[in-house]
Amino acid sequence: MLADQQILRIPGPSPIPPSVQRAMSQPMIGHRGLETKELLQQIKPELKTVFGTKQDILLIAGSGTAGLEAAVVNTVSSGDEVLVIVTGAFGDRFAKICNEYKTNVHRIDTAWGEAVNPDVIKDYLKSHSGIKAVFATYCETSTGVLNPVDEIAKIVHTYSDALFIVDGVSCVGGVKTKMDDWGIDILVTGSQKAMMLPAGLTFLAVSQRAWKTIEENKQSRFYLDLKKYRDNLAKDSTPFTPALSLLFGLKQVLKLMQEEGLEEVYKRHQLMKEMTRSAFRALQIPLLTNDTAASPTVTAIKPGDFRAEDLRRLLKKDFNLSVAGGQQHMKGEIFRIGHMGYCSPADVLQVISIIEIGIKKAGGNIELGKGTRAAQEIYLG
Amino acid sequence: MLADQQILRIPGPSPIPPSVQRAMSQPMIGHRGLETKELLQQIKPELKTVFGTKQDILLIAGSGTAGLEAAVVNTVSSGDEVLVIVTGAFGDRFAKICNEYKTNVHRIDTAWGEAVNPDVIKDYLKSHSGIKAVFATYCETSTGVLNPVDEIAKIVHTYSDALFIVDGVSCVGGVKTKMDDWGIDILVTGSQKAMMLPAGLTFLAVSQRAWKTIEENKQSRFYLDLKKYRDNLAKDSTPFTPALSLLFGLKQVLKLMQEEGLEEVYKRHQLMKEMTRSAFRALQIPLLTNDTAASPTVTAIKPGDFRAEDLRRLLKKDFNLSVAGGQQHMKGEIFRIGHMGYCSPADVLQVISIIEIGIKKAGGNIELGKGTRAAQEIYLG
Repeated sequence: MLADQQILRIPGPSPIPPSVQRAMSQPMIGHRGLETKELLQQIKPELKTVFGTKQDILLIAGSGTAGLEAAVVNTVSSGDEVLVIVTGAFGDRFAKICNEYKTNVHRIDTAWGEAVNPDVIKDYLKSHSGIKAVFATYCETSTGVLNPVDEIAKIVHTYSDALFIVDGVSCVGGVKTKMDDWGIDILVTGSQKAMMLPAGLTFLAVSQRAWKTIEENKQSRFYLDLKKYRDNLAKDSTPFTPALSLLFGLKQVLKLMQEEGLEEVYKRHQLMKEMTRSAFRALQIPLLTNDTAASPTVTAIKPGDFRAEDLRRLLKKDFNLSVAGGQQHMKGEIFRIGHMGYCSPADVLQVISIIEIGIKKAGGNIELGKGTRAAQEIYLG
Repeated sequence: MLADQQILRIPGPSPIPPSVQRAMSQPMIGHRGLETKELLQQIKPELKTVFGTKQDILLIAGSGTAGLEAAVVNTVSSGDEVLVIVTGAFGDRFAKICNEYKTNVHRIDTAWGEAVNPDVIKDYLKSHSGIKAVFATYCETSTGVLNPVDEIAKIVHTYSDALFIVDGVSCVGGVKTKMDDWGIDILVTGSQKAMMLPAGLTFLAVSQRAWKTIEENKQSRFYLDLKKYRDNLAKDSTPFTPALSLLFGLKQVLKLMQEEGLEEVYKRHQLMKEMTRSAFRALQIPLLTNDTAASPTVTAIKPGDFRAEDLRRLLKKDFNLSVAGGQQHMKGEIFRIGHMGYCSPADVLQVISIIEIGIKKAGGNIELGKGTRAAQEIYLG
């Protein structure tokens, strides 16, 4: 195997663009100096566009889970009624955090691989008054499901006074996101997925409505206190030491997104999804999710006549290609391909043509090249 | 198109492995200090293995052409009879350099795309005594031909007293090279091909026999005087300022080659050649060279029902994939795919699956996926 080649197609971390890697390697600067102030000033407006909001995007040094916890501890406290939509492992994580803080957790669970049906939420909210916050996952990384957060937002605001809080970790930056228009109150994402950075930075945008709740919420929090981040960011600063090299990289990421055009970025992700799905459909290997529920950033596949873990092992050994396995009860049942961030249709073709070889070696009964051909046909339109 | 993605599959420069890129970015050091001495000491033995020689490999800051010129000006002078084997643009370059120095140039030309027949050289040398040096190209980059330099060496030494001087620029490091065993007197290569570095460094190895000629040769030369490089390298030094970051990179390249194993490196190149050739054969698009003459590092393809330049333009525009066109009279007639150095079977699958799309868009009548499938089948063996 070619030494040094890493083909990383898990649903995060995703590969880093070379110019971002270069940007991150610039020498350190003082984080209380003018240069950091200017860096934050440059980052702020572009980031709003990615989130689809007029609000400032708060930047916290921490992984996506820190962002999820921040969304919880700033808005609810012990005994509050919360509704968590659980469509997979990351919806479940929101519920775990809410449990840890002794809120009264209501759950709507779907079968893994299915998106939530907004009508179910409507019925739930109609029959359960007093829900203070509804938590949902935009893209459920563990299953490759994209939940209809725009529709859910409308329902939450029509049938309750709850805040609507969304985990957008594995898709913001890769799929259309209109936080303000849709009515999302808090939107969280992480750096290591469609944002094309290493992990270590979590992003939160907060609606005016949510700020009122946050101001009043008595739950103890210090590092994750969003007010501190808001007040400092208003002065182009941060309350605690920022992860500077990630900010250097973020500035370049936003430049790349602007160069390509956000709409083009979304189209590319859509195309990569369709290429991937058509390939496995042509190979007659079942997809975990249906077309409506499928995320443009990650695809989960449920093999029939070969073992997912055999395939993953072979791909890693022969090509140093990493695809993800299943999480929790899906372990060994599925494999997942990340096609987000710094990933192109050319990369999708590569992954598919390699996986076809891997499937053959794992004992799957497929016709070589058929998946690649289907993906090529989607590309050609 | 995904900003920042560069898919570089021309026959040099080739992509740089990430660890080599990192190695090259280390801070500068003094080139007359102990650290540079140690660096050269570390590089020397490994490099001999790549060339298949016990001689030290001389390192000159310059491109491959500087290396070719060094091979000429150190061994021959005005009026000397030389024989140049011309199988394409780079054989022609050797002839041009020999002409510039007013040697008496004999040429054996083959049709582009063909390797030289050693028997033709045998007959030529039998009927032309007094040839002082025979110049040949190991891999002719312009056509993707690998000339049988082992056989030619034997003939040169059997039927003449000439030195045998070989341009190995586009293959040394990617194909089996046994300079001493085969009887090559001077072997030249460059950094930007199978050696996985940026351009800017040329390498020459010189046999004991050739040193005798070099000592006696009266042709003026200063920067390219190989004796200066030899004498300095014996003391782990260089006569002039070395291209230090390329040396930092070279140390890492040699480490990567050692990790993979040179025999494995050669097998990988052989496999990439066979995958590429089988793909175009399956697509019924003619290859410029036959199986015996084909180089493991570059493949030239001669399209029938579409235009090579249309294809190249489309691949660049849609995927930022660069493949090379033809040189001199082959311009517009062929396109060339580099598969050397930091390139894997996974990359070959990507290039082929992209090119299939490009061919369709350029109006070629092919069955999508058929070339990819043929390459996959070769991989599976």
